[in-house]
Amino acid sequence: MERVYNFSPGPGVLPEEVLARVREEIPNWHGSGMSVMEMSHRGKAFQSIIEQTEADLRDILGISQDYRILFLQGGGNLQFSMVPLNLLGVKRTADYVDTGYWTARAMDDARQYCRVNVAASSADTGFTSAPAQDQWRLDPRAAYVHYVANDTATGVEFHWTPRCGDVPLVADMSSNILSRPVDVEHFGLIYACAQKNLGIAGLTIVIIRDDLLGRALPITPRMLNYKLHAEKGSMYNTPPTFAIYVAGLVLKWLKNSGGLRAMEQRHAAMSSLVYDFLDSSSLFRNSVQKSDRSRINLPFTLRGPGLEDRFIRHMEERGLVNLHGNLGLGFRASMYNAMPIEGPRRLVEAMREFEKMHG
Amino acid sequence: MERVYNFSPGPGVLPEEVLARVREEIPNWHGSGMSVMEMSHRGKAFQSIIEQTEADLRDILGISQDYRILFLQGGGNLQFSMVPLNLLGVKRTADYVDTGYWTARAMDDARQYCRVNVAASSADTGFTSAPAQDQWRLDPRAAYVHYVANDTATGVEFHWTPRCGDVPLVADMSSNILSRPVDVEHFGLIYACAQKNLGIAGLTIVIIRDDLLGRALPITPRMLNYKLHAEKGSMYNTPPTFAIYVAGLVLKWLKNSGGLRAMEQRHAAMSSLVYDFLDSSSLFRNSVQKSDRSRINLPFTLRGPGLEDRFIRHMEERGLVNLHGNLGLGFRASMYNAMPIEGPRRLVEAMREFEKMHG
Repeated sequence: MERVYNFSPGPGVLPEEVLARVREEIPNWHGSGMSVMEMSHRGKAFQSIIEQTEADLRDILGISQDYRILFLQGGGNLQFSMVPLNLLGVKRTADYVDTGYWTARAMDDARQYCRVNVAASSADTGFTSAPAQDQWRLDPRAAYVHYVANDTATGVEFHWTPRCGDVPLVADMSSNILSRPVDVEHFGLIYACAQKNLGIAGLTIVIIRDDLLGRALPITPRMLNYKLHAEKGSMYNTPPTFAIYVAGLVLKWLKNSGGLRAMEQRHAAMSSLVYDFLDSSSLFRNSVQKSDRSRINLPFTLRGPGLEDRFIRHMEERGLVNLHGNLGLGFRASMYNAMPIEGPRRLVEAMREFEKMHG
Repeated sequence: MERVYNFSPGPGVLPEEVLARVREEIPNWHGSGMSVMEMSHRGKAFQSIIEQTEADLRDILGISQDYRILFLQGGGNLQFSMVPLNLLGVKRTADYVDTGYWTARAMDDARQYCRVNVAASSADTGFTSAPAQDQWRLDPRAAYVHYVANDTATGVEFHWTPRCGDVPLVADMSSNILSRPVDVEHFGLIYACAQKNLGIAGLTIVIIRDDLLGRALPITPRMLNYKLHAEKGSMYNTPPTFAIYVAGLVLKWLKNSGGLRAMEQRHAAMSSLVYDFLDSSSLFRNSVQKSDRSRINLPFTLRGPGLEDRFIRHMEERGLVNLHGNLGLGFRASMYNAMPIEGPRRLVEAMREFEKMHG
């Protein structure tokens, strides 16, 4: 099969230019006589790679020197534990804004170490909205406020940055980091796994404000202590070198593609194409409140039962793949930075065709 | 520069056949229309990759169904915490056999959660030997016995399997897994990072006996609980998919190269070449007790000061790279499975030449 349109929620589509570059450099990186996969993480060659990757990330997101960038492992799931272990300090409570699937997992893990105050929740809307700031009931004793900036599962995205006064704001940006400009200064900590907008699985980026380092609980496993990774420049242990290299190539591609403003426009265009069709469709439907719809992960359902398998087959025959919904429920089109605009165009075309056949 | 001989302690040399295969498959894996890097970990294609990788590892090491194989992240360093967190259960003590650098780090991490009984130590020999079994003073109350089967830093290897009665034996085999046959049934748990004999950084393999699952301390972060990963087939979160794919290719290569017996012979031949030269040299020296010398990581020093930089340059000019010792002290030649026999031949030739010039 020729190249497909890959709507996977992650690991997901990568820029073709990045794949071509990886391929070209596999046997012999920049005349070093070896592949990046074979390089000592402490050698000059890899040092130059990780330093350039960090510099480009700082540049693209406008991250000041008040923040450290950590290249870690374990995905968002490990952050669900690392955040409370590292940020609680002497406090016993943390605020969580509950927007469904991923917040539930984050809260479950945090409850091992602290009282979780559900500061706001969209449970009453079936997790089809982002609770407005004036509904947030923050606990003044909370060590931090945690929210999921874009829920990959429910397709709810915050299109505004919450304000929490002096309490550090923690954001899981796994699925929307680098998809638009963001004012990092409003955050205490941002984390994101790489396999959506930043490369491949096995790398997690943590952006943490300097003053939040050094509060880890005594029970924190050493490898889960942000401070230690910050002190060692993410070299306390062997970092996921190849994944960092791919992230570096993705960042270069992003810069050459116009940066975050261009990504923002691309996502506006791509998601509008699909939502406009869904809203006019008699067969397909997205249930998220319009103001809170994700530009990245677009869940939808089919009205009327029995057509699911046929729909997936119809799409796959047209090279439109990985459209299954979270936990196998319904459908979802995930469109990360590397998705070409042709992707949603073909998607809508094929859905319209299916609607004509079965609507 | 053409392909070098890479003596890095890890990440280290990969088989050229594996690199060629990765390169070939980068843009479009088996006609799937996408790269392995872009695949959903829950899709059929990646499922077939992880299942085949596990099956090959089971086959090569002769791992029975009494053991689970986990594909994790975080390297050996994270295992230093995961082992006590998961295996202590109701016990308060663990036995550690101290052979230097890596054991020290493992013990440091274990001391957060239990009393560490140093059952044996080679500190009195400057960590140049493996304590004989009759010197081990095991604590009958210990939850497990931990040792480092091959210390990458000190170049000390156990060429025999310790016996600990009913107490589970835990081995860090990061740098010698798959380098010779091993009787897995003697172990409770074996762990190894992948970036030495099994592929690239960012993947850690844990082989754990079934009955040791389910003992995790309540403070164990969820992502650090072996049982959860076992229950979910290493799919609780997104595993490091590309690293698992590379490991799968390395295992296929190992099978096609004659399996563990062939690797054992290769290491015997490669290490003999280098040790024979070192023992006859007036300029170079390895201090490890002959019976306990690593076949994989061969540390050595230069007699007489001031020649270090010149030596490294001499070797690099001949395409022999990454010979720096641990923490920048002395030198070390690491020869993993993928090292061609031509590597140690050229190494000895170049060292002999250097000796003639400076001896």
